[in-house]
Amino acid sequence: MALVVQKYGGSSLESAERIRAVAERVVATKKQGNDVVVVCSAMGDTTDELLDLAAQVNPAPPAREMDMLLSAGERISNSLVAMAIASFGAEVASFTGSQAGVLTTERHGNARIVDVTPGRVQDALDEGKIAIVAGFQGVNRDSRDVTTLGRGGSDTTAVALAAALKADVCEIYSDVDGVYSADPRIVPDAQKIEKLCFEEMLELAAAGSKILVLRSVEYARAFNVPMRVRSSYSNDEGTLITGSMEDIPVEAAVLTGVATDKSEAKVSILGIPDVPGEAAKAFRALAEAEINIDMVIQNISSVEDNTTDITFTCPTADGQRAMELLSKLQETNNWENVIYDDQIGKVSLVGAGMKSHPGVTADFAEALRDAGINIEMFTTSEIRITAVVREADLDNATRAIHDRFELGGDEAAQVYAGTGR
Amino acid sequence: MALVVQKYGGSSLESAERIRAVAERVVATKKQGNDVVVVCSAMGDTTDELLDLAAQVNPAPPAREMDMLLSAGERISNSLVAMAIASFGAEVASFTGSQAGVLTTERHGNARIVDVTPGRVQDALDEGKIAIVAGFQGVNRDSRDVTTLGRGGSDTTAVALAAALKADVCEIYSDVDGVYSADPRIVPDAQKIEKLCFEEMLELAAAGSKILVLRSVEYARAFNVPMRVRSSYSNDEGTLITGSMEDIPVEAAVLTGVATDKSEAKVSILGIPDVPGEAAKAFRALAEAEINIDMVIQNISSVEDNTTDITFTCPTADGQRAMELLSKLQETNNWENVIYDDQIGKVSLVGAGMKSHPGVTADFAEALRDAGINIEMFTTSEIRITAVVREADLDNATRAIHDRFELGGDEAAQVYAGTGR
Repeated sequence: MALVVQKYGGSSLESAERIRAVAERVVATKKQGNDVVVVCSAMGDTTDELLDLAAQVNPAPPAREMDMLLSAGERISNSLVAMAIASFGAEVASFTGSQAGVLTTERHGNARIVDVTPGRVQDALDEGKIAIVAGFQGVNRDSRDVTTLGRGGSDTTAVALAAALKADVCEIYSDVDGVYSADPRIVPDAQKIEKLCFEEMLELAAAGSKILVLRSVEYARAFNVPMRVRSSYSNDEGTLITGSMEDIPVEAAVLTGVATDKSEAKVSILGIPDVPGEAAKAFRALAEAEINIDMVIQNISSVEDNTTDITFTCPTADGQRAMELLSKLQETNNWENVIYDDQIGKVSLVGAGMKSHPGVTADFAEALRDAGINIEMFTTSEIRITAVVREADLDNATRAIHDRFELGGDEAAQVYAGTGR
Repeated sequence: MALVVQKYGGSSLESAERIRAVAERVVATKKQGNDVVVVCSAMGDTTDELLDLAAQVNPAPPAREMDMLLSAGERISNSLVAMAIASFGAEVASFTGSQAGVLTTERHGNARIVDVTPGRVQDALDEGKIAIVAGFQGVNRDSRDVTTLGRGGSDTTAVALAAALKADVCEIYSDVDGVYSADPRIVPDAQKIEKLCFEEMLELAAAGSKILVLRSVEYARAFNVPMRVRSSYSNDEGTLITGSMEDIPVEAAVLTGVATDKSEAKVSILGIPDVPGEAAKAFRALAEAEINIDMVIQNISSVEDNTTDITFTCPTADGQRAMELLSKLQETNNWENVIYDDQIGKVSLVGAGMKSHPGVTADFAEALRDAGINIEMFTTSEIRITAVVREADLDNATRAIHDRFELGGDEAAQVYAGTGR
């Protein structure tokens, strides 16, 4: 008998009919002899509808009240799922995040889980019940106020519960049946990956894969909770995410997949004095505005005037705020110029096989060259290579890399055997 | 400075615009120097929508899960009201029933409040904040599960909070501006009552007035919390409900109003043996099915066969179940017949003045006689007279009694000075 945590996303719960289908799957898992804990997001458009109502009564609502409002969405979906499960004859009890012992930091709207004390959930399991826990929400330890966990919060709830209950697996259900070697809308022969390690999934998530949010994978890795990405519309086994890349034998290490990201913009600061503390002014201002930056590149100094250029990427959504901040700094510090460009795309190749197989970087660059695509920025980590290209070139770049590393086809992803990194 | 508890019903909160109007009123009350606690029902049709969703996933949902579901409605409305209040510049914090310390019996769907420990609400008031409390919900003491309070639950939350906080008044806002001497849709010259005592309001509520639910008035009377019925659409002072009829000087005691009720049916058991325990069989069966009965009348025995007839009223909604139970008993006990009639209406005259002025009963009966209306059943309490008439005669009966006792007109309700009760 295993303990299985299952998390269902909003699109899996968009109607009464879909809720009953989810309930049927949950009950089947229980009948196979497993203990089951279910974490649900809010139904379909509930969160958007609540946000819309909030905007109508107050364009800048207090974060504490916003959390009270949004947490109602998961109360609704979770109790409905519990009712549907009961209609199939199983014993069930639903719990709010607070009742399930999900303790968080104080920060409303984007709280972090600091501890999970799922005593009531464990009691329900011990009584033979299926336990339902409202995702995305918790209670902060000092104020005892309702908090929400921000984007991907329900995935994080599921993983944190799985860790606290020492579950055997945390299954994440949505409308896709696994992690693919590339976005199938861009690469028609992209194939589903059976298994990958936490580090690979982290790199894919960081590089733009939307299938799992970074923080839930970080949490799963920290507590060594195996995750499985599955579709609520099929019985496909999906993709298993488990283990460290250290444990993968060199000869089994593969290149996992290609991730793409169109959500970022590129900002360049030109002619900034190459003296200690000058670049820090820019990064401190952006950090204080809570703008995440990525792919920072500083070129070598110009010999003439001892200035340099700095380029980084940041979410397009934060682009305008970033430019306002930097333009002010440009004036007061006499930087030459600040340039903004949101017509870019990021393409990344990820795989634990990279570290043991030289030549991947060269093959990556050649694949883009052969497709006639210019690389504007370029960074690597131990198991990832990322290039920034024109947004218009992104799909072609993705296909070129996917082809070059033979990630497609009907068979399992190939062991990479390139030459000369 | 006073402490005011304000309760707003769902129709006062049916849109973002209405929520902002409510918030404006709340902030105005605070600015007048009062401490303010606000209790809100769910918005407009929210509860019906949630019930509809529940019925789609499970026609007989577990009561515990139904409470988890329905309590979300008040979370939504209350946090939206809090946001709207914040937009007018006031400090505010919303609390769930559980956070506000509303402790209830175990029974889901129709729990009773057993204690209120509003420490967090008091703290918020002490910090100068307006406190918002989700109505209709609490937490049961042993299981620590979310409960709901059944019909009129938000009124009861408001009164119970007012009692626990020793508030000066509990204002109940809806779309009517007070308690009237009769239903203005039936009696055009019905007038608003400025003030009445708890007992009068209890009798009116028990006799079919929908403006306040019986249990909230019972709670207010028990803890001596003055209530005020007001409209959220006007600044009218509404109707104040306070004090005991014992405190009303005889010469000031008046007849308060006429209440009508079309929601009941009449059941007659004919030819039941007039021996101890025979009628109890019927009443026990109805009690076990949780069918409330009212206006029980037993005629004197027939000398011939020592049988009697028993007639009572019960909610039409329970009529079918009552008849099924009684028909079974009729067979096993050889009662002569059981007759059902839902074409009846109840008309009641209420007023503390009744006890000190004889002749009211006679005038009541004559008023109906003069209008050509037959009385089918008749009961009285110390301050109420009730007659059952044909449903088709109910409106005429109401007008006849309202006129006879001169309850209408532009002036205040008249002191009754009839003769010969």
